[in-house]
Amino acid sequence: MKKLINDPADVVSQALLGMEVAHGDRLRVDHEHKVVFRKDAPRSGKVGLVSGGGSGHEPMHGGYVGLGMLDAACCGEVFTSPVPDQMLAATTGVDGGAGVLHIVKNYTGDVMNFEMAAELAADGDVQVRSVVVDDDVAVQDSLYTAGRRGVGTTVLLEKLVGAAAESGRSLDEVTELATRINGVGRSMGLALTSCTVPAAGKPTFELGDDEMELGIGIHGEPGRKRVPMTSAAEAAQLLVDPILTDLPYGTGDSVIAMVNGMGGTPLIELYIMYGEVQRLLEKAGITVARCLVGNYITSLEMAGCSVTLVKADDELVGLWDAPVNTPGLRWGV
Amino acid sequence: MKKLINDPADVVSQALLGMEVAHGDRLRVDHEHKVVFRKDAPRSGKVGLVSGGGSGHEPMHGGYVGLGMLDAACCGEVFTSPVPDQMLAATTGVDGGAGVLHIVKNYTGDVMNFEMAAELAADGDVQVRSVVVDDDVAVQDSLYTAGRRGVGTTVLLEKLVGAAAESGRSLDEVTELATRINGVGRSMGLALTSCTVPAAGKPTFELGDDEMELGIGIHGEPGRKRVPMTSAAEAAQLLVDPILTDLPYGTGDSVIAMVNGMGGTPLIELYIMYGEVQRLLEKAGITVARCLVGNYITSLEMAGCSVTLVKADDELVGLWDAPVNTPGLRWGV
Repeated sequence: MKKLINDPADVVSQALLGMEVAHGDRLRVDHEHKVVFRKDAPRSGKVGLVSGGGSGHEPMHGGYVGLGMLDAACCGEVFTSPVPDQMLAATTGVDGGAGVLHIVKNYTGDVMNFEMAAELAADGDVQVRSVVVDDDVAVQDSLYTAGRRGVGTTVLLEKLVGAAAESGRSLDEVTELATRINGVGRSMGLALTSCTVPAAGKPTFELGDDEMELGIGIHGEPGRKRVPMTSAAEAAQLLVDPILTDLPYGTGDSVIAMVNGMGGTPLIELYIMYGEVQRLLEKAGITVARCLVGNYITSLEMAGCSVTLVKADDELVGLWDAPVNTPGLRWGV
Repeated sequence: MKKLINDPADVVSQALLGMEVAHGDRLRVDHEHKVVFRKDAPRSGKVGLVSGGGSGHEPMHGGYVGLGMLDAACCGEVFTSPVPDQMLAATTGVDGGAGVLHIVKNYTGDVMNFEMAAELAADGDVQVRSVVVDDDVAVQDSLYTAGRRGVGTTVLLEKLVGAAAESGRSLDEVTELATRINGVGRSMGLALTSCTVPAAGKPTFELGDDEMELGIGIHGEPGRKRVPMTSAAEAAQLLVDPILTDLPYGTGDSVIAMVNGMGGTPLIELYIMYGEVQRLLEKAGITVARCLVGNYITSLEMAGCSVTLVKADDELVGLWDAPVNTPGLRWGV
């Protein structure tokens, strides 16, 4: 295992130290609970947004804390759900009296622990709602989930719902919006290589030199199938086709599109993939209203990429364009 | 070779197609010359900023074209200098009557070709100046350079000088600033793995499982020495020490600091490295005024990182904070 770390046991806590000194102007870190807070949280009268999950997917979620996005992110160990105590600390820490929305990726541990934290917070008189993101069309149930996994749509949802919360919408309105976005968001990914969890010290899985894993999860959990290594054009088709038929998306639709790198794929390849994805969408009569190309929800150093589409109307595009100021996504402020 | 590409011969041209559709609101691409232009170039009365070099370092340079940074970037083949024709097309395309500054990384091919393009542009009555960035403290001469290589300072310089050009400074003033920034910028990098140039199809060099290459160049050219794999704390010291003693930087200095990933190192490790770098700077009495942590000047999928420090005064911090709107660096607009 070749990694720029000190002790595998300290990876998350030391990365949080680094985040804190790098972004201390905008963020503060509760090191006891491993929670990244927006510096000015809680904001009185604003709905608080809390997300979190296993670490190793950076910039998600800690990198999405800040104006126009999350108020707090709970950081579990690498690829491991945070515990309810962390989520409770985050929830009470961001409640400004208008309630708190939990944005939860659909993994059994995350869902259970966020539910428990919500009950505990409700006992303390914090109004808590929850949205569970389950956008991965690859598999119906998986190693770590009942139902579909929550992946790329989470990033876009955090941006969009973050803008809505910033603009003063109520907990009911923000929850409805989040549920609606999850309903029109779909993702699918593939991997060219495995990744190594520091505490494990060896690759999560093995993949032949001529193979790729189609429908990979963000923890290296198995996808739909192994397929022979192929071109960018064919890879794009393998990702886009199952997404388009699932919702379904169709002629005349407008989308926010993300071509996301898994961590180890260079940006030059992601741009090639984006060109191919855009071509396929155009062929299907779908307009890309806005897009992201880069590493936004990663799996450590895994090579590969995923495609996410969120069907967008004028309201969502307006929320997309609103200012955001986080380490991972920043514009207009 | 496992890459999300179509044909190794088309990597750069197809990535430019992807960039164009992804960022068509801000950029346009001259596909004949493989030049990325700011959409509104030339801007009358504004000094034009042109950079460029081999591809494979994305987001540099194409990703740094836009308001508050470059006006054009010339994209060579992967790890190969662009040719004078490309640079000439970029130079004449951005000249708004106030002249053009070439920002050149010190590699023999780049320097020669930019010089030739400058002469050709001068024949066409465009006033051209040039700054050659040579900030890499690792080696005095190298495989591809006479003198030091140009690396991370280039990114910070393009941001700072971009802000100055945007604010209306003259060609003389912008050139003086660029020269001054190069004079106070230093970098050093290390690699944990090699990378594979698509046209070559195999890794540029071999590195043992227990080794890292200290003082690596951004094309995988040899550094100072091979050293045993070590901790993040020690790796940070191996990068920071030679930088601090070189300028030298000292107690009371303020810097803009970048911890840059080579492409294949996950962000969670870069934050650990940033924490270590910051600790060393604090110990040396140096204040970090501003920082960047992420993949800004890469070597395809190489794992590793580099540290860049630019000694900063109030003027430079002001230029740093000015709005920028490029695919690779964006805030305040």
